Amino acid sequence: MRDTYVLGVAMTRFGKLLDRSLKDMAYEAVWDAIRDSNIDPHDIGIAFVGNAYAGLITGQESIRGQVMLREVGLNRIPIINVENACASGSTAFYLARSAVASGQADMALALGAEKLFCDDTGKSLKALATSSDIEIEGRMGIVFAGIYAMRVRAHMARYGLTREQLAEVAVKNHDHGALNPRAQYRNRVSVEEVLNSRMIADPITLLMTCPMGDGAAAAIIGTREAAERMGKRPVRIAASVLGSFGYPDKDEPGIVARVARQAYEAAGITAADIQVAEVHDAVAPVELFLYEELGFCGPGESGRMIDEGATRLGGRLPVNTSGGLSSRGHPAGATGLAQVAEIVWQLRGEAGERQIRPAPGVGLVENGGGNVAGETAVVAIHILAA
Amino acid sequence: MRDTYVLGVAMTRFGKLLDRSLKDMAYEAVWDAIRDSNIDPHDIGIAFVGNAYAGLITGQESIRGQVMLREVGLNRIPIINVENACASGSTAFYLARSAVASGQADMALALGAEKLFCDDTGKSLKALATSSDIEIEGRMGIVFAGIYAMRVRAHMARYGLTREQLAEVAVKNHDHGALNPRAQYRNRVSVEEVLNSRMIADPITLLMTCPMGDGAAAAIIGTREAAERMGKRPVRIAASVLGSFGYPDKDEPGIVARVARQAYEAAGITAADIQVAEVHDAVAPVELFLYEELGFCGPGESGRMIDEGATRLGGRLPVNTSGGLSSRGHPAGATGLAQVAEIVWQLRGEAGERQIRPAPGVGLVENGGGNVAGETAVVAIHILAA
Repeated sequence: MRDTYVLGVAMTRFGKLLDRSLKDMAYEAVWDAIRDSNIDPHDIGIAFVGNAYAGLITGQESIRGQVMLREVGLNRIPIINVENACASGSTAFYLARSAVASGQADMALALGAEKLFCDDTGKSLKALATSSDIEIEGRMGIVFAGIYAMRVRAHMARYGLTREQLAEVAVKNHDHGALNPRAQYRNRVSVEEVLNSRMIADPITLLMTCPMGDGAAAAIIGTREAAERMGKRPVRIAASVLGSFGYPDKDEPGIVARVARQAYEAAGITAADIQVAEVHDAVAPVELFLYEELGFCGPGESGRMIDEGATRLGGRLPVNTSGGLSSRGHPAGATGLAQVAEIVWQLRGEAGERQIRPAPGVGLVENGGGNVAGETAVVAIHILAA
Repeated sequence: MRDTYVLGVAMTRFGKLLDRSLKDMAYEAVWDAIRDSNIDPHDIGIAFVGNAYAGLITGQESIRGQVMLREVGLNRIPIINVENACASGSTAFYLARSAVASGQADMALALGAEKLFCDDTGKSLKALATSSDIEIEGRMGIVFAGIYAMRVRAHMARYGLTREQLAEVAVKNHDHGALNPRAQYRNRVSVEEVLNSRMIADPITLLMTCPMGDGAAAAIIGTREAAERMGKRPVRIAASVLGSFGYPDKDEPGIVARVARQAYEAAGITAADIQVAEVHDAVAPVELFLYEELGFCGPGESGRMIDEGATRLGGRLPVNTSGGLSSRGHPAGATGLAQVAEIVWQLRGEAGERQIRPAPGVGLVENGGGNVAGETAVVAIHILAA
């Protein structure tokens, strides 16, 4: 397998973008990524397009990527549509990276795009519910917020996490998002505001949840030769792992811990080497579990980690400098590639007001999808080393 | 890249299967493929699942493969959902083959499943329409049958194809399907019956079109080592190519010709070496164009080829011995893998009443998806050599 590099990245602003279409957002993200890569677009040999819900929102199923990439002008290369719930963008990235690593193509495009806002919120919510088994969880009425709430309460009971610690994750991510011109929300919030916002599923309040969003993001992946030609500091993909799982056995490590272990091994590093991370805070408290599963701290130590500000900008390991799902936003299929974009910008020193100084050398992306209770899940971890 | 082999294949019976779910059909196809492969299912390292329309028919979008493979008991391996209209199954096969060729996994599962029949035919038709650009062709009302009709008429005008020759393709495929216990239709039809059946889009009549269908099919792909352990005659995948295209330039070869050329080159053979083929006869007359684009005959010679019976069982190059889309059926996401199954059975001498004797040594699969007029299209061609 060959070494692979991220040649360029891009994302649209995320948000409630009622006047933008998937085609329009894909156009912006792909061409910005091409410009960022400084490549000839004719050198792109294959494209993977991640989207989770278009069939149920815009009505375009079946050939979503072909339709988007026709608009872009890139529809004569092999195009493969992938779908893995909120990890669809990471799945596209994973396959694009595999295609270059294996020599199938010298350059590959990964595009993620999602439109969740439409004229009917019920339609959007129904679409989101298809990321669980509609015949089982769908009929039981077990929704994501409820599943997360149960996990959070179990963790609170076991390790003594406080409500203030849960809220602090949202506060931190909003502080970061306020510095990100592409973020959906740029307002700061206080612990009190988070705790006093509407209760969604105790202990998860409204300001601990991520918003629905529209947006697109893209990455172009290539060989070392292509990276050397581009004239910018290339970012190497040291590992890219994708996993799924069924209901875990008792005391079995979660899927993220399992996949992270594989990623660290593939990259030849440990969790202690990570200097910046973008993780899947679908609800803010989950970010705390992720610190533990990713090995950023030991079991039960994530509360102390957030108290100490270790994962804030300026801390020892800034997490979600983009604002995370909570604040940057979460247009499902685009999220995994927006995470990659943020890490690439941080590694290159191009993250503007939210730049970590000195620029970090090793970053991690964790993106999840599907019912978190264990029915199904997809996680992709990309470790990018400059 | 390593050599890759089809270790095992399976398909359910295709048809109007109102009492069967995607999960149920996937269960049958995957376990039959595992038994056919004589492998330990724990050795499967990754799964690619092709489906085109479930989000719009059953409502299960986003994590279709995870939901199906949980039922199968295989949901702890990486699972990737792919979608490329009627070529979704071939896209899953293409990626599964790439994963083994590149060393990403030693064994991979490709599953294709589709449920098109439901309680609302309008819903099914609307879902099928998403294989074109819903904002362009969808609003213009240009449907697949109409597009095919225009192509057929242009070919008739240029080369003098007759209506009887078009009908003869449907007659041949129904004759073949009558010998296939898994085919959706097992009745024979005459040229007169085909020509006198209801006109759909002149010159295409009802009996020249393929039916909607439900069904699943699967293939397990592995390395030479795995193939040697299985105890059956393994079938090598000599080439697997996937292409997309935009509007073709004038006089430019079609996408099938382009992809076929790449596949022959990759396999180190020519069209003259092919001894059996499964091709995408979405409407029967298209099979004639495919003879020409695949190089089975020269431009304009397909009419003579069908007249001579060259592509019938007993002819020099039997095409669609399964019955093809016309008679075996076309549950979109399953079709590409049903085609692979037929070729594997023919190469192994396991095709029952429709077995070519002596068993052929080299077979070709051509599967298409998306709007054939050129807006978008996906074609995968797999050349299997015993």
